[in-house]
Amino acid sequence: MAKQLLGKEVTAALNEKIMGQVAELKEKGIEPKLCIIRVGENSSDISYEKGATKRCETLGVAVEKILLPEEVTKEELLAVIDKVNKDTSIHGVLLFRPLPKHLKADQSEIENALDPAKDVDCMTDGSMSGVFTGKPLGFPPCTPQACMEILDYYGIDCKGKNAVVIGRSLVVGKPAAMMLMAKNATVTICHTKTVNTAEIAKNADILVSAAGVLNSLTKDYVRPGQVVIDVSINWDAEKPNSKGGKGAIAGDAVYSEVEPIVEAITPVPGGVGAVTTSVLVGHVVEAAMRTVK
Amino acid sequence: MAKQLLGKEVTAALNEKIMGQVAELKEKGIEPKLCIIRVGENSSDISYEKGATKRCETLGVAVEKILLPEEVTKEELLAVIDKVNKDTSIHGVLLFRPLPKHLKADQSEIENALDPAKDVDCMTDGSMSGVFTGKPLGFPPCTPQACMEILDYYGIDCKGKNAVVIGRSLVVGKPAAMMLMAKNATVTICHTKTVNTAEIAKNADILVSAAGVLNSLTKDYVRPGQVVIDVSINWDAEKPNSKGGKGAIAGDAVYSEVEPIVEAITPVPGGVGAVTTSVLVGHVVEAAMRTVK
Repeated sequence: MAKQLLGKEVTAALNEKIMGQVAELKEKGIEPKLCIIRVGENSSDISYEKGATKRCETLGVAVEKILLPEEVTKEELLAVIDKVNKDTSIHGVLLFRPLPKHLKADQSEIENALDPAKDVDCMTDGSMSGVFTGKPLGFPPCTPQACMEILDYYGIDCKGKNAVVIGRSLVVGKPAAMMLMAKNATVTICHTKTVNTAEIAKNADILVSAAGVLNSLTKDYVRPGQVVIDVSINWDAEKPNSKGGKGAIAGDAVYSEVEPIVEAITPVPGGVGAVTTSVLVGHVVEAAMRTVK
Repeated sequence: MAKQLLGKEVTAALNEKIMGQVAELKEKGIEPKLCIIRVGENSSDISYEKGATKRCETLGVAVEKILLPEEVTKEELLAVIDKVNKDTSIHGVLLFRPLPKHLKADQSEIENALDPAKDVDCMTDGSMSGVFTGKPLGFPPCTPQACMEILDYYGIDCKGKNAVVIGRSLVVGKPAAMMLMAKNATVTICHTKTVNTAEIAKNADILVSAAGVLNSLTKDYVRPGQVVIDVSINWDAEKPNSKGGKGAIAGDAVYSEVEPIVEAITPVPGGVGAVTTSVLVGHVVEAAMRTVK
């Protein structure tokens, strides 16, 4: 039976570290603050906002919300971003995306209007450049960083290990590959055009699956001794849920056949997804710390 | 015997393409221009400058040189960069680095003062972000792009192939990996902390060696059927030179033992290095073309 890599354990340790940093900042008279900019009333945005707000409150980070109507103009939104850029009491900014349809053509311009120093959710080109080059130009996306936090917490040394990332998106796969390489792993990135993914995956010591395809990670992809980080959050209509019915979230792995083989694995839910919110709050605190360095 | 992938053949094709683009631009009244900024009298800078100038002249691209004394101040250099940013007759800028010691602490600030749209030699964070994200934010470094030009010219399809890059520098290894992935190769990046590089390299269909270590690529790293791109330019004190003595440049490969095994290989000299100057000039022309798009 594999060791379960539990998000809640990682988050508990991360939260403790963050609270220590917040206490240090408050001694210096700085209260770290996250600004959430939400356009419209998208239910998943609101749900994420609630979670982030609660986590900020728990950890002593202030939250300022700027709620804009669905029909906000590009100019109005850019003015808001300009204002938060200049507001030294705000250390990190979360802008929900995708933006409404009428702003889609300007999305990149809007995203890059934010100062990368406040870009705690990696939406600017500056943050992306930082992920690639290793410079502290912004912040990496929260999900791949959550994977790294899990590896760190469980003492999984990446140096010289073969790490395989399945997926090459800019929010997970590519940054995860860069972050694993920064930890001195030898990294292979597989994607939809890879012809022998199962064989490559089987050769991994650390396997990060971010395919976003339910049941794509079968027993053919794994071997004993592996650490599997299942990043994806898919909907499994057949999976029993907590209400006694069917339909629940699930990762890429066919958990029942992968888990008995590998050495360690993150469950879904309860794995990577459980760590991302604290990573986001950690970025706000780090952004505040950078202002006093 | 392996097919030799010759830089001069690739360059000839590339030059023809560039000259066609220059002709189109000139019909629109635009003369593409490269601005070379050189600080001091470093002999390798001067040598590169001569080569780039000559290639520009051959291809119909204008060159403006700004020569600054070794003791130029940060403010003076920033003023020059600001001027070339604003000069719409200049499409691409090449600034030789490393800068003199007294500017070293400010090197990143100086590099990033350049408009990424004119950054034909990939010195800005914006260009780096573009390499990572695939956005046309600047230009990739010339050396890894020269590798791609070689693959393209010789019709080597990367889709679904296993590509292995040895080296993770920001000027070659990492960008080469991103560019191979953009061509749908499955990419593995090996580096100094990789424990089984020979074994991984042997599994590659396309092997890009950018270790920068003379004789590091031996017969143990290769197998029949492989395409080897030897990027490095090392000094081999034992290699016979054209003057009948010893001492010549060489790649990573022990050419005499690798060449008989693999399917195709770039010689050093005469391979990748022979393509980079035209890639640079191509960037200037592309930068000019972007201004009219």
